[in-house]
Amino acid sequence: MPRSVLADHELAALLADDVPCGDLTTDALRIGPQPARLSFIARQPMTVCGVEEAVRMFELAGAAVKAELASGDVLSFQSPILTAEGDADVLHRVWKTAQVLVEWASGIASSASAIVEAAQHDGRRVPVACTRKTVPGTKALSVKAVRCAGASMHRLGLSETLLVFPEHRLYLDEAPAVTIARLRAAEAEKRIVVEVGSVEEAVVWTEAGADVIQLEKFPPERVAECRAAIAHSRMRPLLAAAGGIKADNAGAYVAAGADVLVTSAPFTAAPRDVKVTFLRD
Amino acid sequence: MPRSVLADHELAALLADDVPCGDLTTDALRIGPQPARLSFIARQPMTVCGVEEAVRMFELAGAAVKAELASGDVLSFQSPILTAEGDADVLHRVWKTAQVLVEWASGIASSASAIVEAAQHDGRRVPVACTRKTVPGTKALSVKAVRCAGASMHRLGLSETLLVFPEHRLYLDEAPAVTIARLRAAEAEKRIVVEVGSVEEAVVWTEAGADVIQLEKFPPERVAECRAAIAHSRMRPLLAAAGGIKADNAGAYVAAGADVLVTSAPFTAAPRDVKVTFLRD
Amino acid sequence: MPRSVLADHELAALLADDVPCGDLTTDALRIGPQPARLSFIARQPMTVCGVEEAVRMFELAGAAVKAELASGDVLSFQSPILTAEGDADVLHRVWKTAQVLVEWASGIASSASAIVEAAQHDGRRVPVACTRKTVPGTKALSVKAVRCAGASMHRLGLSETLLVFPEHRLYLDEAPAVTIARLRAAEAEKRIVVEVGSVEEAVVWTEAGADVIQLEKFPPERVAECRAAIAHSRMRPLLAAAGGIKADNAGAYVAAGADVLVTSAPFTAAPRDVKVTFLRD
Amino acid sequence: MPRSVLADHELAALLADDVPCGDLTTDALRIGPQPARLSFIARQPMTVCGVEEAVRMFELAGAAVKAELASGDVLSFQSPILTAEGDADVLHRVWKTAQVLVEWASGIASSASAIVEAAQHDGRRVPVACTRKTVPGTKALSVKAVRCAGASMHRLGLSETLLVFPEHRLYLDEAPAVTIARLRAAEAEKRIVVEVGSVEEAVVWTEAGADVIQLEKFPPERVAECRAAIAHSRMRPLLAAAGGIKADNAGAYVAAGADVLVTSAPFTAAPRDVKVTFLRD
Amino acid sequence: MPRSVLADHELAALLADDVPCGDLTTDALRIGPQPARLSFIARQPMTVCGVEEAVRMFELAGAAVKAELASGDVLSFQSPILTAEGDADVLHRVWKTAQVLVEWASGIASSASAIVEAAQHDGRRVPVACTRKTVPGTKALSVKAVRCAGASMHRLGLSETLLVFPEHRLYLDEAPAVTIARLRAAEAEKRIVVEVGSVEEAVVWTEAGADVIQLEKFPPERVAECRAAIAHSRMRPLLAAAGGIKADNAGAYVAAGADVLVTSAPFTAAPRDVKVTFLRD
Amino acid sequence: MPRSVLADHELAALLADDVPCGDLTTDALRIGPQPARLSFIARQPMTVCGVEEAVRMFELAGAAVKAELASGDVLSFQSPILTAEGDADVLHRVWKTAQVLVEWASGIASSASAIVEAAQHDGRRVPVACTRKTVPGTKALSVKAVRCAGASMHRLGLSETLLVFPEHRLYLDEAPAVTIARLRAAEAEKRIVVEVGSVEEAVVWTEAGADVIQLEKFPPERVAECRAAIAHSRMRPLLAAAGGIKADNAGAYVAAGADVLVTSAPFTAAPRDVKVTFLRD
Repeated sequence: MPRSVLADHELAALLADDVPCGDLTTDALRIGPQPARLSFIARQPMTVCGVEEAVRMFELAGAAVKAELASGDVLSFQSPILTAEGDADVLHRVWKTAQVLVEWASGIASSASAIVEAAQHDGRRVPVACTRKTVPGTKALSVKAVRCAGASMHRLGLSETLLVFPEHRLYLDEAPAVTIARLRAAEAEKRIVVEVGSVEEAVVWTEAGADVIQLEKFPPERVAECRAAIAHSRMRPLLAAAGGIKADNAGAYVAAGADVLVTSAPFTAAPRDVKVTFLRD
Repeated sequence: MPRSVLADHELAALLADDVPCGDLTTDALRIGPQPARLSFIARQPMTVCGVEEAVRMFELAGAAVKAELASGDVLSFQSPILTAEGDADVLHRVWKTAQVLVEWASGIASSASAIVEAAQHDGRRVPVACTRKTVPGTKALSVKAVRCAGASMHRLGLSETLLVFPEHRLYLDEAPAVTIARLRAAEAEKRIVVEVGSVEEAVVWTEAGADVIQLEKFPPERVAECRAAIAHSRMRPLLAAAGGIKADNAGAYVAAGADVLVTSAPFTAAPRDVKVTFLRD
Repeated sequence: MPRSVLADHELAALLADDVPCGDLTTDALRIGPQPARLSFIARQPMTVCGVEEAVRMFELAGAAVKAELASGDVLSFQSPILTAEGDADVLHRVWKTAQVLVEWASGIASSASAIVEAAQHDGRRVPVACTRKTVPGTKALSVKAVRCAGASMHRLGLSETLLVFPEHRLYLDEAPAVTIARLRAAEAEKRIVVEVGSVEEAVVWTEAGADVIQLEKFPPERVAECRAAIAHSRMRPLLAAAGGIKADNAGAYVAAGADVLVTSAPFTAAPRDVKVTFLRD
Repeated sequence: MPRSVLADHELAALLADDVPCGDLTTDALRIGPQPARLSFIARQPMTVCGVEEAVRMFELAGAAVKAELASGDVLSFQSPILTAEGDADVLHRVWKTAQVLVEWASGIASSASAIVEAAQHDGRRVPVACTRKTVPGTKALSVKAVRCAGASMHRLGLSETLLVFPEHRLYLDEAPAVTIARLRAAEAEKRIVVEVGSVEEAVVWTEAGADVIQLEKFPPERVAECRAAIAHSRMRPLLAAAGGIKADNAGAYVAAGADVLVTSAPFTAAPRDVKVTFLRD
Repeated sequence: MPRSVLADHELAALLADDVPCGDLTTDALRIGPQPARLSFIARQPMTVCGVEEAVRMFELAGAAVKAELASGDVLSFQSPILTAEGDADVLHRVWKTAQVLVEWASGIASSASAIVEAAQHDGRRVPVACTRKTVPGTKALSVKAVRCAGASMHRLGLSETLLVFPEHRLYLDEAPAVTIARLRAAEAEKRIVVEVGSVEEAVVWTEAGADVIQLEKFPPERVAECRAAIAHSRMRPLLAAAGGIKADNAGAYVAAGADVLVTSAPFTAAPRDVKVTFLRD
Repeated sequence: MPRSVLADHELAALLADDVPCGDLTTDALRIGPQPARLSFIARQPMTVCGVEEAVRMFELAGAAVKAELASGDVLSFQSPILTAEGDADVLHRVWKTAQVLVEWASGIASSASAIVEAAQHDGRRVPVACTRKTVPGTKALSVKAVRCAGASMHRLGLSETLLVFPEHRLYLDEAPAVTIARLRAAEAEKRIVVEVGSVEEAVVWTEAGADVIQLEKFPPERVAECRAAIAHSRMRPLLAAAGGIKADNAGAYVAAGADVLVTSAPFTAAPRDVKVTFLRD
């Protein structure tokens, strides 16, 4: 995933949001045309993300940039991220927008990466899927960040997958098997995911033929209970654990028998710090 | 600040990002036309934000909405936020996007509010100003959230204020007083803010005539030192403490003599939980 | 699906594309302010689509509109579609853009509807799924049209489904079972669809464990052959027939044993005629 | 007309519509970084169109492209169209969007070209003009396609030409000569085109001084009748035949005396097939 | 022309350009929720324009507005234009953007109106057409302003009319009659306008068959000369005088025999003053 | 300020506004592919602006451009501005849009420059600040033009500065000192600017502690009176003269004691003429 997921006009819009008419301080000081250089360096270990977008922002503004790494790379303390060279007013214009973007995206990627790392027990790894609950207006970058960290997206939106919430079932008056049959007929090629709130419901929908049972806010021990309860069913749905999953409990969910971990935690993870240093030639 | 800061086409774009072609699950279940209702309720105490945007999203999709409160209101556990009524497919389409928006914006507002609350000592309150380091693509809502919580914006972007960073001064070869004089001539109507990294620098720029001295990552005790160091200067710049300021150290900074607290913390604060309940008529 | 899938600003942009500065003829004739009425009537039988968009366009321009039907309804010759009332310049401004939209979208819907109708044999109906090959720039309306006709979307784009083309496999050097296993691990929740070009390939990928085998450009008799060839496999993939499927051969594909029909035909179907009549009050 | 009529941000938007977050299949298979090549080849004879847009799409995504031809060129079966080289994930991302664009635009161009070719009789060629009835959202490319095929645009929209429909005249209570005089005064520099539904009307508006008489849905024999009816008039309007004109009746209209053929047929013409072949280096 | 030519999202964008995050002064003073009223009144006589856009801006922001007039109306000193009622922060947010829009658009309309008024001699009126040289980014409103003042648009852009400049002819090596014949064949339905720089050229292109001869920067006496020079030609092209035409010389051009006056002057005319008065209820 | 303030997609939109589908005249004449050159030359002395935008427009369309100067440079009669080389259809497409942009922006810059030049008396220079009353839709370029001429922006919009109008005070019932104190508390880092309509008000707000007193439509002699009236105050606000300030009275305002001149005059200044010459190779 080594390319900017934001098109040039979107990067230009992000910059214009912060700097509609140049950096007034640089202009008033009349230092704009001086040759300048800067570097981005990791101030913390991190799974870095957003480098390609930062690089392109500097380029669009007229700087020359070098970056030897890609989104998804794991950085240690003080790893170099990128260097840029250009007029002082160009570097001052782009600096903070690019820095904030990398810090924020790397926060998501590092959080996702930690959960992916933790999602194992006794040599068994399970996949981590992130929900669609991205911060409003940040979807493309948020998705890039979780994917470059080795997680996948549970789904990108409402229009392409079948995930039956209790809030959907409130409007149904029919047996679960009828519901499943109707969904198969309507969308033959899609998996049917059903979110449940109790072990009993899990069993019912397993018997009805759901492909994936999503266990909403089950503690690990109830996931284990659920796993046991369907063990002898002739159906073999995946069990997806969702709600409150983080790096520190991911292992327990795997141990309990979850097949997939579904989480929104990375999207509001704390940013990772990037140090920016300016140089004068 | 009781209106949506996002225009209709921006709200429509947020919705389309998540639901480009309807909720497939609702459609496949054929429950779309059923009459439905839902309510948003605070699952935690919070300074709520984003209600006006959520309301308008439901309206644009075709639902009737009621909300008795406004962004900036302080909610206790289980306070009602809004109720919406409409076809099941409308409510299912808007539900999560609206919920995530309110949860995230209320996280920012609640964090800002806590810092504002903490920014006092011995009866003396100082203002809290948030930086421009908003998550990329979220500026309008982020600004609304901190403002409705009683904080202000340090600045909205680079193009309208003078904030002289060390990274600007690297390209100057002149006495501070000359710099200040040149800035006054160029931008007579603007305050001159100078960011410094040491007490010595603070004194130098105080003497040079800066209007505001921004103390970057000073612990409270060094802020106090700085306050003492300039006490007998004939200049009276404001001292703004910036970097690492949160609710739990804000009081200490006030006690140390800061005139303004500058923080980015609210922009990546944890969201506040909102409970959504669907009803069938 | 009874709402406009285009937001107001998108409808306004469509109108502005055709009428950036008013209808010059109406203006030059000075008939703009006269009260006027018009009606849209089906000139052919059709599954109508785009009514909600047409209605909203007239409204945005300032007319009052009535429509008693919804996208997806089946109309006979001379069925009324909508009536609008307003100033002559408003009706003249919107007329053709709205008419062309309904005619074109109803062409897609009617074509999809005919294939859905034909996709049966001996009482067995199979679902019809349309590809993502929509005419550039028309995706939202095209998707609405096929869905309101009872067809589904095979997929909405590349980012949410697994469809392994021969063009992907060209870059693999591994056994099919390995490929399937890797895909399951990477995207546990998604169905795995594999496109094949021969019966032999179909058998190989069936054995490897694909969820859906997509038969690209197989005539019905080869579909039947394929059905027979996998009859005794312990795997039970769906067989999706794709390529060249239309209303006149859909039944033969069902008879041959296809489980799903995949088609792009509706997107470039001939428009259905709508008659527009103006009245003077 | 050898340049992309869509700007980079419009091409990026078309791509993002289909591939908001990369090709999931390529990503899950981990074949993204492999070097790859592909070629587009005509599977049918065609007047090709959209090559420049396809080339630019590949370039924007990061591929190197070669195309030795231009929109408007006439291709025979198996003529090469373009070749692209780049990472497998780039080629997979752009492939279908670019292919569909060329296939669809070449369908329009080929249809227009066939009508242009047919619009002659006995050595006399007449121009072919396409209407503004383009599929909603496709105007720029549709116009390029008909123009590169040697047809012209009857008009691009409502705001720059005078075309008096019966639907305009419904709101007039005056002699045709008065109408013409008023239009001349209002828009001295524009031609006055009048659409009529009968030979009698054609004569009336010829006498009134229209510059062009547009004969709506006249069969060829009535066009000839009309030509005869105005033969002795001192006015010499152009006769434009409109409605239902295709390649197979164009010659008859020319023989009947039409000066211009006006048609919407190309905009919904069947696409021309393009074969895409991937290679592995 | 009594409707806003800017769609809601365009008006919202204009407002956001000036007021991205509310009126800071109103917010800091905490007067936002107070009920307020304001009125716009003409401070000079004017042909008013932009009223519909101003009204809609106030409405979008949440105010109730009344306006008894329409763009194109002639106002005397102190004529009322509109009144708005709403919260103080709404009125303060919209005030200047709406005022500047009306002042600027009325400047264009008033200038165009004065030229239209002056374009007569001895009872003979000739039409005034404005060029496409609108200030970058202002086309829709500029066109509305000249049209509502009774002028027309010479052309809206390059893509729909034939205007042969000397800069086109530089690339031709053929007789004028050949050029005209080729243009007639290519674009049978368009008028052919030819811009010339001397009386000799005017005669040449008249003989060649141009429909309109555009006299670029001819003083009135040379227009008269030109009129005389072609008086006995069997061709009857319109003579359009262009370049430097204003209200004070328009009459002379009419007297000299121009059939159309072409001008860019209104687009940069001085704004007309509008007085805004706030009231407190 | 030597870069385009409009991003590529904004420049592309400006071009598309004028030339949605190519220059019809060039196309109909079939001169498009001929090699061509053109030059822009100052037809009047001017402070030039918009060169970078013009250059980029030509580049985006496919031409090679050279410009040896930058926005803000002072040109004499016949100074070269830029030269471009490319296909005739490229140069014809961009020509007028680029020319009008440079002419209009240079009009603003030249007007601002003249006021800056005049804003002195007896060796004392005062800064010139332009208001936010830019022509709707032209903000970015207008700001660039005044800044490159040596003027500054009074403010960019409503959201970042405190400027207390009488229209704000209408909703206050408190002593001026209270107002100032409340504003200081709310926005500690901002200057407080107060607009007044009389010398008495100026004195009141000076005493209350405003940082800047803006004198709205004071003739120079009343500015002098005001200067005298506050001479003995212990407060030292800046006096900003606003309203009706132009190059011919700027000196008088300086002489009268204004510290800053605030003006909107440049935004509607007359364009400066640029001569465009085409060459054939």
